Amino acid sequence: MQLALNLAGSATGQTGVNPVVGCVVVHGGRIVGMGAHLKRGEGHAEVLALNMAGDQAREATAYVTLEPCSHYGRTPPCCDRLIAEGVSRVVVATVDPNPLVSGRGIERLREAGIQVEVGVLEPQAIAQNEAFNKSILTGTPFVTLKTAITLDGRIATRTGHSRWITGPESRAAVHTLRHRHNAIMVGVDTVLSDDPELTTRLTVPGINPTRIIVDSKLRVSETARVLNDAAATFVLTTGRADQEKSERLQELGVEVIECGEGPRVDLVKAMSILGERGIGSILLEGGGVLNGAMLEAGLIDKVMLFYAPVIVGGEGSPAAFAFSGPEEMSSALRLKNVTMQTYGEDWCITGYPAGRAAETFTGAGALSDKEDN
Amino acid sequence: MQLALNLAGSATGQTGVNPVVGCVVVHGGRIVGMGAHLKRGEGHAEVLALNMAGDQAREATAYVTLEPCSHYGRTPPCCDRLIAEGVSRVVVATVDPNPLVSGRGIERLREAGIQVEVGVLEPQAIAQNEAFNKSILTGTPFVTLKTAITLDGRIATRTGHSRWITGPESRAAVHTLRHRHNAIMVGVDTVLSDDPELTTRLTVPGINPTRIIVDSKLRVSETARVLNDAAATFVLTTGRADQEKSERLQELGVEVIECGEGPRVDLVKAMSILGERGIGSILLEGGGVLNGAMLEAGLIDKVMLFYAPVIVGGEGSPAAFAFSGPEEMSSALRLKNVTMQTYGEDWCITGYPAGRAAETFTGAGALSDKEDN
Repeated sequence: MQLALNLAGSATGQTGVNPVVGCVVVHGGRIVGMGAHLKRGEGHAEVLALNMAGDQAREATAYVTLEPCSHYGRTPPCCDRLIAEGVSRVVVATVDPNPLVSGRGIERLREAGIQVEVGVLEPQAIAQNEAFNKSILTGTPFVTLKTAITLDGRIATRTGHSRWITGPESRAAVHTLRHRHNAIMVGVDTVLSDDPELTTRLTVPGINPTRIIVDSKLRVSETARVLNDAAATFVLTTGRADQEKSERLQELGVEVIECGEGPRVDLVKAMSILGERGIGSILLEGGGVLNGAMLEAGLIDKVMLFYAPVIVGGEGSPAAFAFSGPEEMSSALRLKNVTMQTYGEDWCITGYPAGRAAETFTGAGALSDKEDN
Repeated sequence: MQLALNLAGSATGQTGVNPVVGCVVVHGGRIVGMGAHLKRGEGHAEVLALNMAGDQAREATAYVTLEPCSHYGRTPPCCDRLIAEGVSRVVVATVDPNPLVSGRGIERLREAGIQVEVGVLEPQAIAQNEAFNKSILTGTPFVTLKTAITLDGRIATRTGHSRWITGPESRAAVHTLRHRHNAIMVGVDTVLSDDPELTTRLTVPGINPTRIIVDSKLRVSETARVLNDAAATFVLTTGRADQEKSERLQELGVEVIECGEGPRVDLVKAMSILGERGIGSILLEGGGVLNGAMLEAGLIDKVMLFYAPVIVGGEGSPAAFAFSGPEEMSSALRLKNVTMQTYGEDWCITGYPAGRAAETFTGAGALSDKEDN
């Protein structure tokens, strides 16, 4: 099952709004097939692994990270294929999180006389699909806030200079994160000050996410580099935006989405709209005001802070989270399930805002505790 | 030698301005004596270990973490005792950092026909006495900046509320740090707002350090709890302080030290004066303005940041380092030799400001690289 999870994990970022799934088929103590769901609309993990196994699938055990589907979607149901191939036992890491179909695949396999076990390495399997789990359950994207940050919580010097806080290892990790998310979101101030491309630049080719710019008054320049691939860019704005500017942007291919009457973009509404547009996961890349607004609105599911071992000084340098916090320290926003990873001289603190996704989507509380296993 | 280092380390904080030293005597493959320097003016590590070894010291090997002394101080020279006991071999972790006597003990032992090796586990031995090394070489105290801090670099909420940022494990670690330093230093604003005792409160009794209050205008209250043991308190002030207030504080037993004409306390001058008063190590416990001023003046040798996994928001909440930093990110103050330790839900980042003590006093560049070993 660990191998199946690894196979699934390798496809993170390339399955669109679909979950990642891995499958390993074992016969007579030997691995005879392995597969992962690689692209939305193409073969599921079970099908690819069974294709590889061929005749040896008969009487085999299939380890699969997510409950096999029992319904016709873009591909036929995997349950039917497992049954047709004569697999005798299926080990499932976790049930389908979609309450409409959850448990049906397992039921169908058992009705066909296949022995089914559920719950092996379940927390890892759930965490692996934390973004999918949220988007299927709520219809809104899973949002990961990422920022490079100094030890004293700053994202630039007092003059606004910010390149670079972190080292090359951290910056490479961020490009991997971009590859793994459906969209990147920034505030217009970041576009105006840094003119970023917001593309995935790795030593091997990666997938460019959709760009989302939060821009209540449509101040973005029509020549901004982020609009180089305008067709993959959303601009979120308000009713106060200049209609002519809006039309010019749309002529470039940009999709301009009105979220509320203003003065600020209604971020809650924005998340619903983006969910409807097929955005399942967002990497939020600041700056401080947008980070603060998203945190304050309770829209952040996961936080990744890339710390560099530097102190920049607190007077006049912009904060990573520019919002007005609580009066009492005990009411400060607390991260749960905190982990740490080093990147060269930097390190990344990853955590989940308490009361948000941690419990529901990420495996901290397994969804199928009620299942027999 | 590792055991000798452990013996020495256990005495950190209880040898005053003396270094910590450990000694293990081995004869015929068995440990026959062990000791550590436990208190200034009392027996040195070698003497205690040789006392334990008795007759078995003859032809034995002595492992000692610091070069044995060759001069009469408060106690007779350890070299003479090692020679008198007939020890045949001495293994030394590192030479005495004091350039006036460095190497003389080793020379004396060799002249007496004893085989001497130098440099075993040297980096650990130097790091163990980083504070002593600085104070003996410069005459000024080794300063460790310690602060509890949120993920976004704050030391309180926007209302000034700060109890508590970190959890009980971190706070216990801070009391151990107090035990291990000669003095604690705070700004008067911290005394006025928190009325702290600044004592060592551990589950077992510890040593209370000297308290140092930076107070340019003598605003400290005569009933502040930090003055409960006024005889162990220094107040650093300026020529602008009210002389009557100064006299009243001195009547309480407080030592009031004038450091410059003001308006702010001349911190460089203060460090020299404190060095002369026998303060070898200082734990700086903030707040943000004093932390910033000490960092800006280049007076911080070591930084220990206890992070809690909370975000408090950046608008109006006090910064951990309130100074105006550089224009370019590449000029920000960088920590070297960074290590990390967890304390319950918190973690402590320890590092050394680049260009400061790291290279000289802490074992990153061994002092006796030139020695034969």
